[in-house]
Amino acid sequence: MVTELAPRQIVDDLVLANHILSNEGVLDAFGHVSARHPTATDRFVISHTRAPELVEPDDLQLLDLHGARVAGGERRSYEEVAIHAAVYRYRSDVGAVVHSHAPSVIPFGVTAVPLRPIYHMGSVIGHEIPVWDIATRSGDTDLLVRDEQQGDDLAAALGRRTVVLMRGHGCVVAGADIRAVVFTAIYLERNATLLMSASALGKVRTLSEGETQRAAAMLRGPAGERAWEYWVRRLPAHRV
Amino acid sequence: MVTELAPRQIVDDLVLANHILSNEGVLDAFGHVSARHPTATDRFVISHTRAPELVEPDDLQLLDLHGARVAGGERRSYEEVAIHAAVYRYRSDVGAVVHSHAPSVIPFGVTAVPLRPIYHMGSVIGHEIPVWDIATRSGDTDLLVRDEQQGDDLAAALGRRTVVLMRGHGCVVAGADIRAVVFTAIYLERNATLLMSASALGKVRTLSEGETQRAAAMLRGPAGERAWEYWVRRLPAHRV
Amino acid sequence: MVTELAPRQIVDDLVLANHILSNEGVLDAFGHVSARHPTATDRFVISHTRAPELVEPDDLQLLDLHGARVAGGERRSYEEVAIHAAVYRYRSDVGAVVHSHAPSVIPFGVTAVPLRPIYHMGSVIGHEIPVWDIATRSGDTDLLVRDEQQGDDLAAALGRRTVVLMRGHGCVVAGADIRAVVFTAIYLERNATLLMSASALGKVRTLSEGETQRAAAMLRGPAGERAWEYWVRRLPAHRV
Amino acid sequence: MVTELAPRQIVDDLVLANHILSNEGVLDAFGHVSARHPTATDRFVISHTRAPELVEPDDLQLLDLHGARVAGGERRSYEEVAIHAAVYRYRSDVGAVVHSHAPSVIPFGVTAVPLRPIYHMGSVIGHEIPVWDIATRSGDTDLLVRDEQQGDDLAAALGRRTVVLMRGHGCVVAGADIRAVVFTAIYLERNATLLMSASALGKVRTLSEGETQRAAAMLRGPAGERAWEYWVRRLPAHRV
Repeated sequence: MVTELAPRQIVDDLVLANHILSNEGVLDAFGHVSARHPTATDRFVISHTRAPELVEPDDLQLLDLHGARVAGGERRSYEEVAIHAAVYRYRSDVGAVVHSHAPSVIPFGVTAVPLRPIYHMGSVIGHEIPVWDIATRSGDTDLLVRDEQQGDDLAAALGRRTVVLMRGHGCVVAGADIRAVVFTAIYLERNATLLMSASALGKVRTLSEGETQRAAAMLRGPAGERAWEYWVRRLPAHRV
Repeated sequence: MVTELAPRQIVDDLVLANHILSNEGVLDAFGHVSARHPTATDRFVISHTRAPELVEPDDLQLLDLHGARVAGGERRSYEEVAIHAAVYRYRSDVGAVVHSHAPSVIPFGVTAVPLRPIYHMGSVIGHEIPVWDIATRSGDTDLLVRDEQQGDDLAAALGRRTVVLMRGHGCVVAGADIRAVVFTAIYLERNATLLMSASALGKVRTLSEGETQRAAAMLRGPAGERAWEYWVRRLPAHRV
Repeated sequence: MVTELAPRQIVDDLVLANHILSNEGVLDAFGHVSARHPTATDRFVISHTRAPELVEPDDLQLLDLHGARVAGGERRSYEEVAIHAAVYRYRSDVGAVVHSHAPSVIPFGVTAVPLRPIYHMGSVIGHEIPVWDIATRSGDTDLLVRDEQQGDDLAAALGRRTVVLMRGHGCVVAGADIRAVVFTAIYLERNATLLMSASALGKVRTLSEGETQRAAAMLRGPAGERAWEYWVRRLPAHRV
Repeated sequence: MVTELAPRQIVDDLVLANHILSNEGVLDAFGHVSARHPTATDRFVISHTRAPELVEPDDLQLLDLHGARVAGGERRSYEEVAIHAAVYRYRSDVGAVVHSHAPSVIPFGVTAVPLRPIYHMGSVIGHEIPVWDIATRSGDTDLLVRDEQQGDDLAAALGRRTVVLMRGHGCVVAGADIRAVVFTAIYLERNATLLMSASALGKVRTLSEGETQRAAAMLRGPAGERAWEYWVRRLPAHRV
């Protein structure tokens, strides 16, 4: 019974988050989204290894903050649950995590151009986004974050921020809850696309730090619900 | 009863305009379109705060030219009704207004490249498009146009033109009626995309001022009805 | 009765051509495709003024080589039937004509970069594509080709070639029959997109004149039928 | 009976591979995918000349390693079965071959920019991708690989690698089996798109040779099944 794993609202939102992030082009067959258990806060909910677009309530499992399965059956976990576990360990304020290979984000991880918000909708990504390189400590790897040391190192690079890029791999987005992290992951993708277009035209004026903070605070308000309703309605199964 | 708000034709066109602008990629969960009341000309019709793709007749409200709700219930208005109110106050010739974050328009608000028509279909945006920056008068904000002074300032930047860009935010499009403003908003988006592509190739020849005026005048003719029929038919609910 | 206008095969192919060119992104609400009458060769078949995606057999009309309606009712013709009439007058080898504002083609009409085939599929556009500018003779206009002199001038620029670009407007594609002109119009669009991408990377090697001729000759063979079957199946109404 | 051609699993996977590669934008009306017969290893299975999206089990034929039809009827073969035959002759480790004109790959065949993996998902294309030019030996042609000498020359350029680009034409992808070659062909397309975007931003850091090898080895594991399930579900006929 999935309701043993987490409250119904968490389960429902997490399944929708998997579908929305696929439908909006943030995730493909790969990447994942998780949510911290609201009361057993040293646990988080995430699907076993399956393409996000196909995730249903029965696919969810409960893991501890070292990535070990606690409930939800024996099916194999994603290779990189260490990413989620590490962020939840480091950040008690974080209630949901997305790891993606969102297309427009990849170029900013392999070039020297910083990814910055250029419009108010992009402000949710924060003023500064670090690029973490697994090779700095681990040398040549398959790029996956597989153990606690790598997870610790990545979480430290994230720090108190919302987004960290992973060189040659993708990004991690941290948020207060599932809907917030979905919002940030989608506008991270949109803002990165727009910044690439703008950069091709010439020198780009990005948002100031003050604008970024004020716009992000505004977007943490009712705007989130308007967007969530829209993204749900766009899902093939929810179209009227 | 929505028919109390405005004539049926206005209501129907405004709902379709919301759906068309979403379906054609001009609006996403955000942005809005409004229409001036045809007889009570100090009133305009606009949805309460909802993603445009989901707007139905019952979502519409009637507002006065200071953005106060006059009819249509107590549901919360969009944060930026001040944009619409200001344009209707300043421009008695304007019957409809779109505010969007159309993707291809954003880069022209944050770089020094002027957005100009490069083909006859783009002529409806006008020969010259100013870029308005909220920071010039208001400093660091959340970028939203929230009060009458900011609305006045934006409307003054628009002047007698059809389009004004908003740095780090989006744009405003003004038109004689709903179908005209939808036409302009869509070809603003298309023309901006093409100008970015052309700019990457080299120096771009834009339309002359005379060509812009003549082509725009031509497109105010029956072309608009041909396009409106096409955009309606492309809506998922209207596909044959 | 549409069968009075032209043989059933011409009518059916012309309606499909309208739908295919819309579905494949070559036409939107604007642009048009026509076919010469196979026996009354001083006539051509084209829709009255309607978005191509919506054209049905009853929308077709028969025009003479001066653009005057001969059969199919009194509904208004497209503004630019002069384009089609002129090409059929000048080129007895041409059985079908497309006029489009295909997005990727526009940038090559307003910059100095020549549009050339860069892969074998693009060879059908020919080795050399001229850019015709209506302003050279007519000065400031609305860019539309409205009369016989303008049509003559455009047809002369096309010469014996397959494609001519129109500065600030679009292009004309001429072909032996409907399926051939659809094939060329679609791969003109694809090749132009690829050339823009390649140009951003660096100096581009285009096909040689010999390669262009040989590949185009090959593609005039059974490849056309394979592609036509595919494009028909992709139409919403023809999906299995 | 198609089961006479090859085991049911090969037939089913090959039909799905045709549909997936079309649906994911790697193939259009052109290009093809084949599989070596698992026991009669001097035979391979491929459709007669038909757009891949339309291929069904009855369209498959069995060919020998010189491209001659052995079973499956007399319908005409693709013009370029010599590509498949040559790769199977040269590489006993290869169980499946894709030949495509994948859009994002074309620019790397006509410019001097090397196509390299820039993220772990792209590692499956290998560290180094040669560009083969048919003109080097054959001069002006229609670019098609039509005979054994051309096939030999192309296979030699491929060598022990996974991908070879064909100047002005497309690419060949070789893999251990159908699902592997589909995976590589799709991420070849994705990685090429991302490398073009990154190149526009500035100097790009590609994966090291060690990272490429380790990530590719990892992706030969269960990741392939996750992706295959996802791509099947995205097919119009398989959507739930």
